[in-house]
Amino acid sequence: MEEQIQQLIEQLFQVLRTILNSTAPPLDQADEALNWFVLFVQWSAIILSALAGLYAARRRGMDFFGSMVIAFVVSLGGGTLRDVLLGRDPVFWLAEPVYAVTVLVIALLSILAGRQAQRSQTMARVAQPIEWIADEHSRLFVFVDALALGLWAYLGTIYALQMSISPVVAPIMGVITAAFGGILRDLFFAKVPQSFMPSQLYAAAAAAGAIVYVLLWELGADSTISFLACFVSTFTIRITSVKFNIQSR
Amino acid sequence: MEEQIQQLIEQLFQVLRTILNSTAPPLDQADEALNWFVLFVQWSAIILSALAGLYAARRRGMDFFGSMVIAFVVSLGGGTLRDVLLGRDPVFWLAEPVYAVTVLVIALLSILAGRQAQRSQTMARVAQPIEWIADEHSRLFVFVDALALGLWAYLGTIYALQMSISPVVAPIMGVITAAFGGILRDLFFAKVPQSFMPSQLYAAAAAAGAIVYVLLWELGADSTISFLACFVSTFTIRITSVKFNIQSR
Amino acid sequence: MEEQIQQLIEQLFQVLRTILNSTAPPLDQADEALNWFVLFVQWSAIILSALAGLYAARRRGMDFFGSMVIAFVVSLGGGTLRDVLLGRDPVFWLAEPVYAVTVLVIALLSILAGRQAQRSQTMARVAQPIEWIADEHSRLFVFVDALALGLWAYLGTIYALQMSISPVVAPIMGVITAAFGGILRDLFFAKVPQSFMPSQLYAAAAAAGAIVYVLLWELGADSTISFLACFVSTFTIRITSVKFNIQSR
Repeated sequence: MEEQIQQLIEQLFQVLRTILNSTAPPLDQADEALNWFVLFVQWSAIILSALAGLYAARRRGMDFFGSMVIAFVVSLGGGTLRDVLLGRDPVFWLAEPVYAVTVLVIALLSILAGRQAQRSQTMARVAQPIEWIADEHSRLFVFVDALALGLWAYLGTIYALQMSISPVVAPIMGVITAAFGGILRDLFFAKVPQSFMPSQLYAAAAAAGAIVYVLLWELGADSTISFLACFVSTFTIRITSVKFNIQSR
Repeated sequence: MEEQIQQLIEQLFQVLRTILNSTAPPLDQADEALNWFVLFVQWSAIILSALAGLYAARRRGMDFFGSMVIAFVVSLGGGTLRDVLLGRDPVFWLAEPVYAVTVLVIALLSILAGRQAQRSQTMARVAQPIEWIADEHSRLFVFVDALALGLWAYLGTIYALQMSISPVVAPIMGVITAAFGGILRDLFFAKVPQSFMPSQLYAAAAAAGAIVYVLLWELGADSTISFLACFVSTFTIRITSVKFNIQSR
Repeated sequence: MEEQIQQLIEQLFQVLRTILNSTAPPLDQADEALNWFVLFVQWSAIILSALAGLYAARRRGMDFFGSMVIAFVVSLGGGTLRDVLLGRDPVFWLAEPVYAVTVLVIALLSILAGRQAQRSQTMARVAQPIEWIADEHSRLFVFVDALALGLWAYLGTIYALQMSISPVVAPIMGVITAAFGGILRDLFFAKVPQSFMPSQLYAAAAAAGAIVYVLLWELGADSTISFLACFVSTFTIRITSVKFNIQSR
């Protein structure tokens, strides 16, 4: 009995490891701890932004389908546009199903949980904290999102460079990956994209990080160091801007 | 003389057969009757949705160009987005001109007929029934559209599978093919997509059909039977939802 | 000293020539004067439409990032959509960075100049005429834009033909290249595209030019003559429509 459980857990880990390996951001394998940290940031951000998209859609009275589409667009839309412009065929979530499946399962469970919460007190107690975390203005959300911002900026830029796109325009792909999920969401909400109006620095932070990466890359810096510089500068600019309410103009 | 007419008719049929063959949905050639039925559904749906798009655009005061674009987007937009995401280059209506030509000619004739109808009583008598049929709430439209819904769901899914996309995400392509024509139309109308708000089941019906197809396909079922199951389940869900006003939430 | 300046100028010219050669529209090399004229029209139009997009975005209260995106979309959006639909991977401004760089530098300088103009009288005297030129209703803008309209119609059509797209649908790519920059801008402004509503002929002029090109091309006309016919007919229709206020319906 105990052996079987152990086997099951091992198998589960095996599946998890396969998923993680197939979705690991392209970093040199030098530092395993860094790789795991990056994977953790990536998946936390995908899940949190799916939830944030979902709640935003529900607040606007959208149904099951609309909410799923918005969750999808917010978390995977930027990378999708990046892949279409670069010509990475098919787009990443068709090549690697775990992204789409995660977002759809998360959205599905949340919608069902939300319905239960309207009826049962116990369920409401579970749903409430999730809703808090997924609130775009919650501290946790802003923190994880700022971490992810640097990661998206890096991913868009490196994918472009890997396809021999000039380093002069590669950062644009970083910005698109980072910022266009929210922009596409606002298109579906039929409103002018939030990030186009004066607000705390978001796309600009991603742009700065992507440019830092490209500069270091051009100077021949180690790829892990270049990544960390991109990551840290994006995060710092974003968090500083939120902390001191520095607004774009 | 009579011989010439016969020849002309034969040639016309030849052209028609070529068009039909080049746009036949990818079904096994087992049943010719089924193939013709599917072709009939496909072309009726393309023409009807082009007309529906056209009238919707005219009602909003759009001009010649805007109406043509909306007609195009409603009838061919879903398949276009599918092709872009899958990387089927160029998109189907560039590879196979008959789609675009049909939609543009239909739109052109309808606009001209509409203008004549404002002046001549005879023309008005011709235009009126077409407008009724193309009304999205007419029985005929809902019927043909429900038939086509299953076809689009099937086409998107099979194209994805043919490109070795995982069966786990292939149904998403079915839903996009079926539902995104209307969604893109609403973007151009600068309003929140209708199908994102509570309404009778549409995208959900396509999703169900696409999932049924993939399940049967995975179980190794005959491809014609899998197609029919997809087709019938989509149609049944859609029509039941309209008949009994079952709304998505 | 003088020699060094001469060398610098020569080097600058060398860079300029390289840029121009790498972005020269695909015309037969028969007539060099024509090539230079076409290049001049292309770059004037890109710069002017970037400025027009920028000012439109600023008037709507958009920030730095939003204004850059709109400038980008207005001047390069049509060609981007064309490339995505045709499957020209990656899109032209990723393959040839000078387009994106030009638009972003122009936008950047204009935003900075605009801010200076609010504070300094001298700067205001420089910024004012630029704003006039970039006004979509200024005579110069309409003139250059009408010239470019024919060029975009030609470019979209010829790129499609070069990829063996049927001449029956190739003009659609011409229209998309010419008209969809403004249409995408309006999507981001969350309003129904201007060019979809009754107005002076714009997309229709591009369509006419593209069709003229395809017809002559089919008849085996010289490619320079076909280009000129496309260019002149688009320009004439557009300018006549503006001059006599001929409105689409």
